[in-house]
Amino acid sequence: MSKNLTKRSEDYSKWYNELVVKADLAENSGVRGCMVIKPYGFAIWEKMQAELDRMFKETGHENAYFPLFIPKSYFSKEASHVDGFAKECAVVTHYRLKTDEDGKIVVDEDAKLEEELIVRPTSETIIWDTYRKWVQSYRDLPLLINQWANVVRWEMRTRLFLRTTEFLWQEGHTAHATKQEALEEAEQMQRVYADFAENFMAMPVIKGTKTESERFAGALETYTIEALMQDGKALQAGTSHFLGQNFAKAFDVKFTSKEGKQEYVWATSWGVSTRLMGALVMTHSDDKGLVLPPKLAPIQVVIVPIYKGEEQLNVISKKVQPIINELRSKGVSVKFDNRDTHKPGWKFAEYELKGVPLRIAIGPRDLENGTVELARRDTLTKEIVNQDDLVVTIEKLLIEIQESLFNKAINFRDNHITEVDTFEEFKKVLETKGGFISAHWDGTSETENKIKELTKATIRCIPIEGKIEEGNCVFTGKPSVRRVLFAKAY
Amino acid sequence: MSKNLTKRSEDYSKWYNELVVKADLAENSGVRGCMVIKPYGFAIWEKMQAELDRMFKETGHENAYFPLFIPKSYFSKEASHVDGFAKECAVVTHYRLKTDEDGKIVVDEDAKLEEELIVRPTSETIIWDTYRKWVQSYRDLPLLINQWANVVRWEMRTRLFLRTTEFLWQEGHTAHATKQEALEEAEQMQRVYADFAENFMAMPVIKGTKTESERFAGALETYTIEALMQDGKALQAGTSHFLGQNFAKAFDVKFTSKEGKQEYVWATSWGVSTRLMGALVMTHSDDKGLVLPPKLAPIQVVIVPIYKGEEQLNVISKKVQPIINELRSKGVSVKFDNRDTHKPGWKFAEYELKGVPLRIAIGPRDLENGTVELARRDTLTKEIVNQDDLVVTIEKLLIEIQESLFNKAINFRDNHITEVDTFEEFKKVLETKGGFISAHWDGTSETENKIKELTKATIRCIPIEGKIEEGNCVFTGKPSVRRVLFAKAY
Repeated sequence: MSKNLTKRSEDYSKWYNELVVKADLAENSGVRGCMVIKPYGFAIWEKMQAELDRMFKETGHENAYFPLFIPKSYFSKEASHVDGFAKECAVVTHYRLKTDEDGKIVVDEDAKLEEELIVRPTSETIIWDTYRKWVQSYRDLPLLINQWANVVRWEMRTRLFLRTTEFLWQEGHTAHATKQEALEEAEQMQRVYADFAENFMAMPVIKGTKTESERFAGALETYTIEALMQDGKALQAGTSHFLGQNFAKAFDVKFTSKEGKQEYVWATSWGVSTRLMGALVMTHSDDKGLVLPPKLAPIQVVIVPIYKGEEQLNVISKKVQPIINELRSKGVSVKFDNRDTHKPGWKFAEYELKGVPLRIAIGPRDLENGTVELARRDTLTKEIVNQDDLVVTIEKLLIEIQESLFNKAINFRDNHITEVDTFEEFKKVLETKGGFISAHWDGTSETENKIKELTKATIRCIPIEGKIEEGNCVFTGKPSVRRVLFAKAY
Repeated sequence: MSKNLTKRSEDYSKWYNELVVKADLAENSGVRGCMVIKPYGFAIWEKMQAELDRMFKETGHENAYFPLFIPKSYFSKEASHVDGFAKECAVVTHYRLKTDEDGKIVVDEDAKLEEELIVRPTSETIIWDTYRKWVQSYRDLPLLINQWANVVRWEMRTRLFLRTTEFLWQEGHTAHATKQEALEEAEQMQRVYADFAENFMAMPVIKGTKTESERFAGALETYTIEALMQDGKALQAGTSHFLGQNFAKAFDVKFTSKEGKQEYVWATSWGVSTRLMGALVMTHSDDKGLVLPPKLAPIQVVIVPIYKGEEQLNVISKKVQPIINELRSKGVSVKFDNRDTHKPGWKFAEYELKGVPLRIAIGPRDLENGTVELARRDTLTKEIVNQDDLVVTIEKLLIEIQESLFNKAINFRDNHITEVDTFEEFKKVLETKGGFISAHWDGTSETENKIKELTKATIRCIPIEGKIEEGNCVFTGKPSVRRVLFAKAY
């Protein structure tokens, strides 16, 4: 398979699809809309999981596991929730196959379930049915629980990582005695997600809240982090929901307060998914392949020997082994690619495609000079480094690359937030420059929907850090007190 | 809820069911046969996962993720495989719900799938369908891949952890160029499982192979590790399968060998599941609750302050903080339970129920004397320890408890392997003493099935370390060259 990618400027969407497959991140499976996450892609996801899991535990959460299947009746208990998910769910109706008269394997109609089971699209209903048994008194609260799981949403149009029928995610589900505590939890998790996105993925995000029509089905408030991809489209990277007492009421989850009163429990839920893999790819990568931030790169440094014959390889191997050992002892992940099945040039292209942050090449002349060639994936620059300085240089560069990727992304993002005050301008910026459009909005779903119909742009969020400013709705001219961010989105 | 458990001697099965729920490991959900794994239970499973994952990676394996759903046609491609699983699988037939005329949520018959999807009971078929695309040349081999996932087998009679409709597991799926390499892989993974069972779970296991009728559906050889529970019943704790070229042929997975020939790929698969949680509970626990080996205990040491009033608690807290810090710096997990909502006696019973290996109690008199009371969960013994010696004593005891649990279990197991030479004796031992029965067998499935019908005992394994010994089948009297192990099993 050729390593050459379609250029971003030619066809961004095609570039993305090719890159995900060629860099061994994921591929489509024989099952409609379901992907196979390949080992290299999964290794990145594992690094994301490890960091997020640590952050969840540091903020007091524990992991648990709830059933994959949700009885249809549970699913229907919260009205807006079922409206939001019923149209796209996988339904289990039978529990056995049999061989028919022609020897074909068919569904056994005698094994029909009395009540259909839904493959979880999200677990609020099954979890709140469980919480009813766990919560009696204020002493049982808060419940701070997270689950790592697979979920299924029957999507008609799918794209690797960005929108798949099955995906992997984590879903936090917490229960609180007071509204205030639940609100603080939902806000805290938005901050945790933003911290992860910026400090590990090197992906700047805008923290905000969703408008009513973009809220999670069953939520009173949805907190979101919104990122901007290189093609000027926004991507919702994580959401945290304040669910009020909706699920507690639907599943009758009450507790006895300190004052001895029976009250409904307050809820939050929050999640990020393998969609982050798509966001990571589209934030940093270039026409040569992936660009990975060092903190999430499965291989941070690759060493490629340049040699003729086994003897030269042996000399190089001997030279690099102490360097490898020292780097590993400092927690740097290093691969020494001494395969004789591929030429150095092939390997260079391979590790560029796979986004390895630093590449070391070492050949006979380097042995003579006590040097190596050190190449940065993000800038594609090379330098000759003294072997004695190599470990220190690498440690410094890994930090520098992480920061530099973030700075580059934040510059791009900040250059793509445009304030507009007329609808003409709105449409023009959307079609030419793209990115976030900061505009006044009259606060109605009606206007929001009309703008969406006309332009495909949606309100990504009402930014938390946005300032109060009098103005007029960009579409209706009605009064508004703050700007919101519009964009076309993934 | 009372902490008192049914005694093992009264009703072992009831004791187990109560313990799993009361110790907060798991509980039944509203979905038939599916369990909720509670945070404390999940924390133990996470420790198991972390160790196993490390061992898999150290033996060269990588993680990946394959779809939850398997098209019915894939599932049918390997004949013995579909025979083994078709009778117990969840079938997805529709992908949408709708609201009917009466306002009820029903399955939308317009959204019927053309081909039904099976919720994976195991992933050989979907994975080998993928491997066909990954393997062209001997250079692409071996593929050494593991998946952590949920699977579904529609069981009619379920028990928490031991047999549930949905369970969590890992499944390794490897592809090799030669039969010999695949056999070695299957045997290696059996050793990895035995190592994990013995050195982390402190659970002795017998390594062996399965008879033809007990083999995995689609395997040519199944390697197993078999453990013995305290009630004298055996439990299959992990299996590793040599699949020959069955799946390669069913899914047309061929490679070009070094010699340029087209050959079918050789396969293995291997798995352990949340069933290990049940095995862990039943190997060590007692009438007071769980007994956990230190290496898998989420809390290794709990400190319970004995105090009157906040002032005394403050003095105690100040005293124990440096001890806690020192233990944590040595990787010991410590909980300081300073809740004022429960009395010390309640806490003692709670941590006994939850199997925390070491409990420290510290009160005013201990402060005066510079001591603490240190209690061992496994032996229920207590000693007074000088505070200065505490950290060293704890480190020593955690190792000692781990070893002691293993030795106790191995003594029990070895005392429950009984050689018998007549069928009368066989039945008598089975009904009175239980455990493994070492007996000659004529090698036929017919005899094996008859013995099973008459006694409910099955051949657990043909032990790898068993000696060659001439004898006569305990049932038919026909000649035999080695003893096999029979037992009633979970």
